[in-house]
Amino acid sequence: MPPGPLMIIGGAEDKLRRPTILREFVDASGGAEARIAVIPTASSLGDAVVEVYDAVFRKLGAAEVVPVRPESREDAHDADLVARLHGATGIFMTGGNQLKLSSIISGTPLGEAIHEAHRDGVVVAGTSAGASIQSSHMVAFGGPGATPKQRMTQVAAGLGLLESAVIDQHFDQRNRYGRLLMIVAQSPQLLGIGVDEDTAAVVTESDGRQLLRVSGRGSVTIFDPARMVTNAYEAQRSSPLLASGVTLHVLPEGATYDLTARELLPQQWAVDPEDEAELAEAQHDMRQMARDIAAGDASPAALRRRLARTRSRLQPHRQDGDDR
Amino acid sequence: MPPGPLMIIGGAEDKLRRPTILREFVDASGGAEARIAVIPTASSLGDAVVEVYDAVFRKLGAAEVVPVRPESREDAHDADLVARLHGATGIFMTGGNQLKLSSIISGTPLGEAIHEAHRDGVVVAGTSAGASIQSSHMVAFGGPGATPKQRMTQVAAGLGLLESAVIDQHFDQRNRYGRLLMIVAQSPQLLGIGVDEDTAAVVTESDGRQLLRVSGRGSVTIFDPARMVTNAYEAQRSSPLLASGVTLHVLPEGATYDLTARELLPQQWAVDPEDEAELAEAQHDMRQMARDIAAGDASPAALRRRLARTRSRLQPHRQDGDDR
Repeated sequence: MPPGPLMIIGGAEDKLRRPTILREFVDASGGAEARIAVIPTASSLGDAVVEVYDAVFRKLGAAEVVPVRPESREDAHDADLVARLHGATGIFMTGGNQLKLSSIISGTPLGEAIHEAHRDGVVVAGTSAGASIQSSHMVAFGGPGATPKQRMTQVAAGLGLLESAVIDQHFDQRNRYGRLLMIVAQSPQLLGIGVDEDTAAVVTESDGRQLLRVSGRGSVTIFDPARMVTNAYEAQRSSPLLASGVTLHVLPEGATYDLTARELLPQQWAVDPEDEAELAEAQHDMRQMARDIAAGDASPAALRRRLARTRSRLQPHRQDGDDR
Repeated sequence: MPPGPLMIIGGAEDKLRRPTILREFVDASGGAEARIAVIPTASSLGDAVVEVYDAVFRKLGAAEVVPVRPESREDAHDADLVARLHGATGIFMTGGNQLKLSSIISGTPLGEAIHEAHRDGVVVAGTSAGASIQSSHMVAFGGPGATPKQRMTQVAAGLGLLESAVIDQHFDQRNRYGRLLMIVAQSPQLLGIGVDEDTAAVVTESDGRQLLRVSGRGSVTIFDPARMVTNAYEAQRSSPLLASGVTLHVLPEGATYDLTARELLPQQWAVDPEDEAELAEAQHDMRQMARDIAAGDASPAALRRRLARTRSRLQPHRQDGDDR
């Protein structure tokens, strides 16, 4: 059995109007059979945040929602608390302070139980801080800015559900290009993954390959520094860093990236079914015309008429970007 | 004779404390022989902006500063006004509204005179709007954000001193990753060049190759979309764009990028002369030790002493990032 999906959510996922990301999580967790454990440790809002997710997940059809809330490493060693994860089909880590979350659960029986659940096929999701903690290397904190500068951010160890990666969130909204680039400039064995708000990077395994699919309103940005040239090991103080030759992927909803091969999967972008039918008709007309021409039995006037008909059929297919 | 250097300045260049970029411009324009034409047309501040640059350039040693200020296309056709460029060794275009600047001077005798001066070896510099206008394709306007979205920005024709490129400025400070990525996603024959504040991309020609050297406090970011996969031609409304496989270069001061070959030039990063001397001494000691060992005439105690001395010499060379 492959490990369960990871849902890495960039924060501020819609909970009211179009909760597509959270619905995807509940559905993946079994829908009406879903038993969801909520870990709100990163948040300083405490019970209120549990109440919100409890309400949302039940509204989206989950059978049960169980809070699991360690507030110290001692709590995270508590067998009764760890046992609350048993039987969960989905685990959800809220936003807040990822350094608090990882300081409390990483390397504890609770942290190990999350790993075990993931290996056993349970869906593990997290938003904002709950997203960052999933990678082996974790952004602890650091300021905004597009240009990578020495020391602009700090790395701590994450929970490590996703290896060889560092995840950042609120990526578009908080202008975090620079800090994620700083990290990959210093650690080119890592893939940098930046997730926008109300957007998820959904990581699954298939035939031994790890695939990352994008879901939601924003994009997932990937920095692949494998062939980068950098001066990060000798840049002084807070000077801007050289990072030349990073391969950049900006991936909107529906795109799938192969984390193992480090490349975009070729894909068919969705076509409107009505457009598709009209396109097929127009293609049929074109082929008929080609046959008529080849057979030499079409008058120029007849060809012109057929061409006009084909054109008018093609009209609705014009893309948004076409000049009209 | 190769064309004159282009200085593409990302805005907000220091004019008071450490005016390194403007000093570089005055020096390149001939220092005490410099005769600088200032084109303030982009700015709504009018004469005040001319007065500032007049004061700065004279303070930095320029012999003469001449304002050239067309406020309409008619002005830009005026032979007397165009004649004010004659004899200039440097041309400086201020910040402001690049669409106003290009609307007034592109395709006029004044615009042609700037091209001519550039071909004749005159330095052409511009900051902010005066930077944007230098490329063949120009960002007209558009909002901030790291994620490229359809329609987030508009392109107009620039003056075209730098071909096959689009320049953006205030790049770090105004979070312009998204809009520059949108443009290259739609136009993968262009190189996207984002210049930070108080930073210049200095473009020169050498042996038929165009080189871009970075000067100043920030970085120059280059997007090379040559091998990109995109959905920009079919993305609807304002949806996020796919831009997978863009090669990204973030270049701090001192880095040189070959615009013709589209690659970073290998380079020696500056080493402190004192560090260099000590490193040479330490290397000498190491070689002596190797010879002693090979000759078998060193006692273990003598080797340990020598090794300790070498280590203490190497101490000061430890880079900033070293663990101490």
